[in-house]
Amino acid sequence: MLGKVAFEEAFTLPRFREKQRWWAGLFAVDPDKHVAEIEDITDTRIKYMDKHGVGYTILSYTAPGVQDIWDAKEAQALAVEVNDYIAEKIKGHPDRFGAFATLSMHDPQEAATELKRCVTQYGFKGALVNDTQRAGPEGDDNIFYDGPEWDVFWSTVTELNVPFYLHPRNPTGTVHEKLWAKRSWLIGPPLSFAHGVSLHALGMVTNGVFDRHPKLQVILGHLGEHIPFDMWRINHWFEDIKKPLGLSCKSTIREYFERNLWITTSGHFSTSTLQFCMTEVGADRILFSIDYPFESFGDACDWYDAIDLNAVDKRKMGRDNAKKLFKLDNFKDSEA
Amino acid sequence: MLGKVAFEEAFTLPRFREKQRWWAGLFAVDPDKHVAEIEDITDTRIKYMDKHGVGYTILSYTAPGVQDIWDAKEAQALAVEVNDYIAEKIKGHPDRFGAFATLSMHDPQEAATELKRCVTQYGFKGALVNDTQRAGPEGDDNIFYDGPEWDVFWSTVTELNVPFYLHPRNPTGTVHEKLWAKRSWLIGPPLSFAHGVSLHALGMVTNGVFDRHPKLQVILGHLGEHIPFDMWRINHWFEDIKKPLGLSCKSTIREYFERNLWITTSGHFSTSTLQFCMTEVGADRILFSIDYPFESFGDACDWYDAIDLNAVDKRKMGRDNAKKLFKLDNFKDSEA
Amino acid sequence: MLGKVAFEEAFTLPRFREKQRWWAGLFAVDPDKHVAEIEDITDTRIKYMDKHGVGYTILSYTAPGVQDIWDAKEAQALAVEVNDYIAEKIKGHPDRFGAFATLSMHDPQEAATELKRCVTQYGFKGALVNDTQRAGPEGDDNIFYDGPEWDVFWSTVTELNVPFYLHPRNPTGTVHEKLWAKRSWLIGPPLSFAHGVSLHALGMVTNGVFDRHPKLQVILGHLGEHIPFDMWRINHWFEDIKKPLGLSCKSTIREYFERNLWITTSGHFSTSTLQFCMTEVGADRILFSIDYPFESFGDACDWYDAIDLNAVDKRKMGRDNAKKLFKLDNFKDSEA
Amino acid sequence: MLGKVAFEEAFTLPRFREKQRWWAGLFAVDPDKHVAEIEDITDTRIKYMDKHGVGYTILSYTAPGVQDIWDAKEAQALAVEVNDYIAEKIKGHPDRFGAFATLSMHDPQEAATELKRCVTQYGFKGALVNDTQRAGPEGDDNIFYDGPEWDVFWSTVTELNVPFYLHPRNPTGTVHEKLWAKRSWLIGPPLSFAHGVSLHALGMVTNGVFDRHPKLQVILGHLGEHIPFDMWRINHWFEDIKKPLGLSCKSTIREYFERNLWITTSGHFSTSTLQFCMTEVGADRILFSIDYPFESFGDACDWYDAIDLNAVDKRKMGRDNAKKLFKLDNFKDSEA
Repeated sequence: MLGKVAFEEAFTLPRFREKQRWWAGLFAVDPDKHVAEIEDITDTRIKYMDKHGVGYTILSYTAPGVQDIWDAKEAQALAVEVNDYIAEKIKGHPDRFGAFATLSMHDPQEAATELKRCVTQYGFKGALVNDTQRAGPEGDDNIFYDGPEWDVFWSTVTELNVPFYLHPRNPTGTVHEKLWAKRSWLIGPPLSFAHGVSLHALGMVTNGVFDRHPKLQVILGHLGEHIPFDMWRINHWFEDIKKPLGLSCKSTIREYFERNLWITTSGHFSTSTLQFCMTEVGADRILFSIDYPFESFGDACDWYDAIDLNAVDKRKMGRDNAKKLFKLDNFKDSEA
Repeated sequence: MLGKVAFEEAFTLPRFREKQRWWAGLFAVDPDKHVAEIEDITDTRIKYMDKHGVGYTILSYTAPGVQDIWDAKEAQALAVEVNDYIAEKIKGHPDRFGAFATLSMHDPQEAATELKRCVTQYGFKGALVNDTQRAGPEGDDNIFYDGPEWDVFWSTVTELNVPFYLHPRNPTGTVHEKLWAKRSWLIGPPLSFAHGVSLHALGMVTNGVFDRHPKLQVILGHLGEHIPFDMWRINHWFEDIKKPLGLSCKSTIREYFERNLWITTSGHFSTSTLQFCMTEVGADRILFSIDYPFESFGDACDWYDAIDLNAVDKRKMGRDNAKKLFKLDNFKDSEA
Repeated sequence: MLGKVAFEEAFTLPRFREKQRWWAGLFAVDPDKHVAEIEDITDTRIKYMDKHGVGYTILSYTAPGVQDIWDAKEAQALAVEVNDYIAEKIKGHPDRFGAFATLSMHDPQEAATELKRCVTQYGFKGALVNDTQRAGPEGDDNIFYDGPEWDVFWSTVTELNVPFYLHPRNPTGTVHEKLWAKRSWLIGPPLSFAHGVSLHALGMVTNGVFDRHPKLQVILGHLGEHIPFDMWRINHWFEDIKKPLGLSCKSTIREYFERNLWITTSGHFSTSTLQFCMTEVGADRILFSIDYPFESFGDACDWYDAIDLNAVDKRKMGRDNAKKLFKLDNFKDSEA
Repeated sequence: MLGKVAFEEAFTLPRFREKQRWWAGLFAVDPDKHVAEIEDITDTRIKYMDKHGVGYTILSYTAPGVQDIWDAKEAQALAVEVNDYIAEKIKGHPDRFGAFATLSMHDPQEAATELKRCVTQYGFKGALVNDTQRAGPEGDDNIFYDGPEWDVFWSTVTELNVPFYLHPRNPTGTVHEKLWAKRSWLIGPPLSFAHGVSLHALGMVTNGVFDRHPKLQVILGHLGEHIPFDMWRINHWFEDIKKPLGLSCKSTIREYFERNLWITTSGHFSTSTLQFCMTEVGADRILFSIDYPFESFGDACDWYDAIDLNAVDKRKMGRDNAKKLFKLDNFKDSEA
């Protein structure tokens, strides 16, 4: 289909080219191609978009990004730099590109302020944050955003009426050492990404973030980071055992998915898994995305375009849900 | 259906009654009932089995069990005690009960020897081990079984031609503290169990255990601890990126599931998830189980009996696959 | 769930009691109970609705009804009688009951006029017609509504902005004799109903009814009378072979299902089939219904209420789609 | 995958070239190509098989074939001619080709005798018959094979231990005129084929053919000609209503599908429908096939090879089920 919207789509700063090339060695078969693609903003990307029927892309700074910087000042400086950079780069293409704010998550108020600046000054479409914020004197701590100290941040997110994309990052510190170091092939998309984000997102559920911020919209990539697989099991244990024992969240897991959570197809181009998610999450809360340049436009779009599926849901997941969620009025939407 | 086989079914030792009652407070709405059910071996259990059409049960010592004991000698002593106890308890009911060996996993050779004793002396049907073995002077280490030092153990398992059930246990030590302590409602079935076992099982895959032991049969509960959800994504990253970058395991993830891995329905009584697993894993590698007394016979059996499903696969998953895997010739199999 | 809407729900006239009792012998294990239930309008029915969470019912005259009467005058007289009867019966319960117009389909203009009377005078919610109209001097002809002579009728339907439910009736005449007489156990829900309606509905598609009346809304019961099963195959043959050979309908079969066709769960309480239809037709075009008293409130509602499904689609299919389609503003909708 | 087996694969006699060209105009966009492909036996076909990973093909005479000939003598003469022809054509390629017997179905004993000749003399793999046999002085009668007079034939089929493929043919006579003439775009794969075969196959069920011949194996193409869609509904009406009212067949519809019926993917290359059939029918009773040259090797094989599915079922449906059913020991099975 034409006019698809994609929004787990990464860029980097040119000044980190060498670091990005080293990093690319962990997950890219052709690191040079990867670096060229992730640095490019509007040239190669628009060609891919036109070729593969993507009308609009929301860009985000690549992982682990600012969440990997345990010095708070350095983290904040980088966030501001990234936001100013991408705002400048895309301002000539309002019909093709938007951006997610990049945020330092060391301090809730600072994160809220920077998000507000990006949304009001630049028209950014929300924020994308890479799982926990690395912190502590040696970077061994992980800041989660599911405690009450983050209410000030979530209040700002809902006041701005923009979504928050909870993106993965790699395990670090003692968790890396104890669990992942000896099975490092599982770091990233094969396993660790889903472990990190599913814990963080369900932590937000059980710690009451969505009860205190009922309008908060959080997006999970990769068809939901495993959570839809256990919808029944989570619901059974929350409702039948944990709540009688004291778990205090107000709604069921299915209700949080109805009101607060979204999932995208980024990096998970499986027809059977998508259909299963349509049962467990529902087509109204599923959104197409790619995960470029870690995945290719061709793999994502050829798959999605060829799925044999009812026309209503295909258009919803491919474009219309995103148009509503991000209030996209005026983009290159060739079929509309 | 009648004659179902179930085998993630827990018992405990009467001498741990008080500890079990405390423990039950974490996951049982009625701890007294739970303690009575988990201590019982052949009375209440046979009544449930007869009422709900379960012909045969393979019993296992409850989690975290021996894997929670970081003193190696103490762990071994408890394993032997448990094995002798359950062998004695079930010997009058060979048509209704079998057992999995309980093993201390501090030392691969010691574990192999005890497994061999249980299989040859008592006719046990395999082993059930609770994820990693807690170890270290303060119990903060986790022994995984995916390194080459465990080859002696896996060789014994395959020589004995019995399956190995990799069951979850709770996170401990710094992993508990850094990830789970502030989101403790997610410990157990809602999330942490799947995190532990999926990492361990896929670690066995990527570290070559199944390449070195191609006949090894490993069982995962709870419909596969999330892994089937990401079959496409794991396969894509293993085959298209990780292997070109050096991952050396010989087969695809789908092939390991075809030859070495099994999943059970324990604790996951969802029709849509089962059907999804039939697509991703296949009915020939899925087995009914309950997870009693953490789950009830009624919830598991009423669900399974009512599923609207083709008759061939329903009988396979409910009984026939288990009969072949465990070489069950002579049990109360009312329909056969 | 509460507040469900159901609308393939039959009644009969008391004066046909003996005929109905004879007829009931073909499909009812307890004909007396059946006759009592189908004659009742607001007593037993409201009790069932309250017990099983049905907020609103749209009633229709039972099959084969007026479509079985091959004398045109007699058919028209019965249609008017039925419409006046049910309007009177339900007028005291506007928050619980609506009705579909019963129509003689011998003459398109006459049918249009009677439909208009029912909608404007009585507020009926649309029409329900039982497949083809029996006609001819000996009742051996079948009038289909897919030819251009019916455009006047379909124009009225779309002007009135009400849906048309195409309900099955039994095969008659030579078709009965040649195909069904020697395999009469297949008459009705096991097979002949789907044969009749799928031919008629797809005849409307290929003969251009929906191209000439793009706003026409047609409802099919029993999860679509087999058509969703062959969505791929129909689409493939229409687009790749039949259209190049001359089939002239303007849209694809998936597009007609998106814009013109709806399916209901009446008489088909299968979770796996519903999920398959969610893929092929989409939850936005699927509506709960029962088929009472040929099916029971308990079978339909207990099944629907227990389905493990995302909350958005469950509410849509159970109630919200029907509220929109029938413009139901003010009924007993306990959850809303 | 390599080594696939396909067996709804048509050929015709060269002497019918002109008739075939005319006929092809109804369903082939390129009639010349169609005629060339359907006449070819071992040249073009082997090239396609090698290109698309088909190891073995069982050939059958194209529809409507002998079932269209209402003169009994003429029909029998053509059946014998066809069988002798194809036996001669394929005898040099025992590792690539088998054949189904072509039968005149005017007389059960005659059909049985010819089948026996083909199986014992030529090693044919079973029979493929095109729905009902046209009969009567003007070809307006349809002989079904579900009455007791056909027991002698079914006894021979089961004694020979070969399967029977019930293939569609077009509606003729008054049935054509009354139902299909004015909606002729629905004749064939879009609808009429499934109507014909589903009625015939379920007629065999309800008229007790499988009760009298419990070892009979009948194959239905096109993923089961709609029957799997209504498995729940058929089962419900047979078990809960029709049997109490007198339907006397001994088993449930699910049991007949377990023991007597098979379905193939011929002409129905839909991933979602295949997965649904895996739930309703089971992968052990589903077989790959193409329907060449009405469908292309590319469409069928590219689809099947690309399906993301567990490895066990994919190999079963693609090859192993067919190897067992047809006792294929020695064909070009490149993966085995």
